[in-house]
Amino acid sequence: MSPSDRKLTYADAGVDIVGGEKAVELIKAHVRSTFRPEVVGDVGGFGGLFAVDWKRFRDPLLVSSTDGVGTKSLVARLANRRSTIGIDCVAMSVDDIAAQGAEPLFFLDYISIGKLIPEEIDEMVSGVAEGCRQAGCALLGGEMSEHPGVMEPGEFDLVGFAVGIVERSEVLPRDVKAGDAIIGIASPGLRCNGYSLARAALLERAGLDLHGPAWPGAPTSLADVLLQPSVIYAPAMLELTRRVSVHAFAHVTGGGIPGNLVRVLPDRCDGVVWRGTWDEPRIFSEIQRAGDVPDLEMESVFNLGVGMLAVVPHDAAERSLDVVRSGGHDAWIVGEIVDGHGRARVETR
Amino acid sequence: MSPSDRKLTYADAGVDIVGGEKAVELIKAHVRSTFRPEVVGDVGGFGGLFAVDWKRFRDPLLVSSTDGVGTKSLVARLANRRSTIGIDCVAMSVDDIAAQGAEPLFFLDYISIGKLIPEEIDEMVSGVAEGCRQAGCALLGGEMSEHPGVMEPGEFDLVGFAVGIVERSEVLPRDVKAGDAIIGIASPGLRCNGYSLARAALLERAGLDLHGPAWPGAPTSLADVLLQPSVIYAPAMLELTRRVSVHAFAHVTGGGIPGNLVRVLPDRCDGVVWRGTWDEPRIFSEIQRAGDVPDLEMESVFNLGVGMLAVVPHDAAERSLDVVRSGGHDAWIVGEIVDGHGRARVETR
Repeated sequence: MSPSDRKLTYADAGVDIVGGEKAVELIKAHVRSTFRPEVVGDVGGFGGLFAVDWKRFRDPLLVSSTDGVGTKSLVARLANRRSTIGIDCVAMSVDDIAAQGAEPLFFLDYISIGKLIPEEIDEMVSGVAEGCRQAGCALLGGEMSEHPGVMEPGEFDLVGFAVGIVERSEVLPRDVKAGDAIIGIASPGLRCNGYSLARAALLERAGLDLHGPAWPGAPTSLADVLLQPSVIYAPAMLELTRRVSVHAFAHVTGGGIPGNLVRVLPDRCDGVVWRGTWDEPRIFSEIQRAGDVPDLEMESVFNLGVGMLAVVPHDAAERSLDVVRSGGHDAWIVGEIVDGHGRARVETR
Repeated sequence: MSPSDRKLTYADAGVDIVGGEKAVELIKAHVRSTFRPEVVGDVGGFGGLFAVDWKRFRDPLLVSSTDGVGTKSLVARLANRRSTIGIDCVAMSVDDIAAQGAEPLFFLDYISIGKLIPEEIDEMVSGVAEGCRQAGCALLGGEMSEHPGVMEPGEFDLVGFAVGIVERSEVLPRDVKAGDAIIGIASPGLRCNGYSLARAALLERAGLDLHGPAWPGAPTSLADVLLQPSVIYAPAMLELTRRVSVHAFAHVTGGGIPGNLVRVLPDRCDGVVWRGTWDEPRIFSEIQRAGDVPDLEMESVFNLGVGMLAVVPHDAAERSLDVVRSGGHDAWIVGEIVDGHGRARVETR
């Protein structure tokens, strides 16, 4: 019988329903490990149910954001290491809503993949669950979708969606003013931004091997450094809002420090960040050298070691550093708000 | 100067920040056209803000779901037609939450794309906004992410997240019992399920041209039929819950009629759906013939012309048909709930 005589099934077309069901079974324990008391029911409904405790608030707003891991997924695939990319996925969305002052409540993930391997899904979702536990939010739902013929077998994308809650009177940014200090919170790696440029510089231009040392003499591999999971700042940010009158947070994603700081500036202020006031992880200078990337380009693409900025009153700067450091993060005073016109700039000290 | 001597920029690496900014400008009017009074602020914050009107409810639950358009995106790309795929994206998630009895409140979209063309993004988001207006929910946020080197230039994926609200005492399913009638609501096309099989059968096996007639003598092209936007059932479903004591909805996505009906059955009941009681759109028999697809496979992959099932009391069946038809949908009594063991089956009449 020739192939064209065969009865065609979904499995022939590349969609493995049995594998999908197996993956759902594998991830259930991960999902349940994130449940908060407000989660109603269990894994498997058409939609996840969540009983928000409205009575804790006078006039609550829901805050919502979505983001993906970008082409960091390709590095994870090339390194055959998928256990922390889920943490990255959670970090991108929950830190966006925490930047508005919100407490993350729940998260959903969406995985598209060329060929569904249940154990790979399990590995990815274990990271998503780890990220949700770190962020204190429930993994309320998700979807996995096999895309044969569109994505290559090992290719995947991971997208997340977070919902949080904030008192309307405490939405950030608010009251950003000249004289405020800018606190930078450390990021040991790239988070999820700039991977296309990093790959072009390190893998294509310099021809480095992901499994080789990150740089000559480095104790860790390039894969270790590039796949370093994104820090989830939300708990430290919420603690800071409880202890200090925070005026704004800027989550340093695409656009880098200036491109995100500018989003929280009123028209009458500029934000100035001084390079040299924090420790820049070596990976950034390695990318810059490998690709001969201009300084301005580096600054508008990468976080350069500062993944979150907090704008606080000048006299609360030292106390803010203490609070953030107590949360386990390195932090520095990296800049200030000055009179201006709503612009952000990076100066090198 | 050889290419390897050039300074590397994000644009060289395939990420077009200027194009991204242009796309954001283009889509703003679409996004604003969906805003409900509860939306706080405008496009462009780190997260979208929404003031839920809690006081309309005694004990409200949030309901959330995520889904994508699957490989229907490839058909849209091959046909160079992106204006309705956003409607599909909204339908998948909002009808999942409406299936639990919830009113959709807001929606977020995520677009990943190989090469960002602002006009293509604009076309896609115009469809998302149209879907949100149909569903009555606000397009509260979204993200677009360029994935050079991972996705081909024209390749894209479109993912959605919906959040809705429902009174805890009215969460569906509830009280499904033997004797209940099953109402089927019409779907003129595949919605977003089964496209890998449909492509394998129609495009690869039968070698049909997307721009040719859908079948011999058909007045419309295959692209027209395959890209028919998914019906958004949510408004009609909500109206039905207001007028009739609905026991359950089953959104017919992956798994087909039996795979989704079974999700709402209590252990003591079976669900039986009779093929032949509704009009099956011709595209399904064309797929089946082109791929010689077994009946059972067709039934577990495609909606076969019934995209939503409603389980209602037997004596409310005719009234339910009237309500759904008044909402502009074809509908039929397609089955019943009988004593059993939590199983769903399709019988041919």
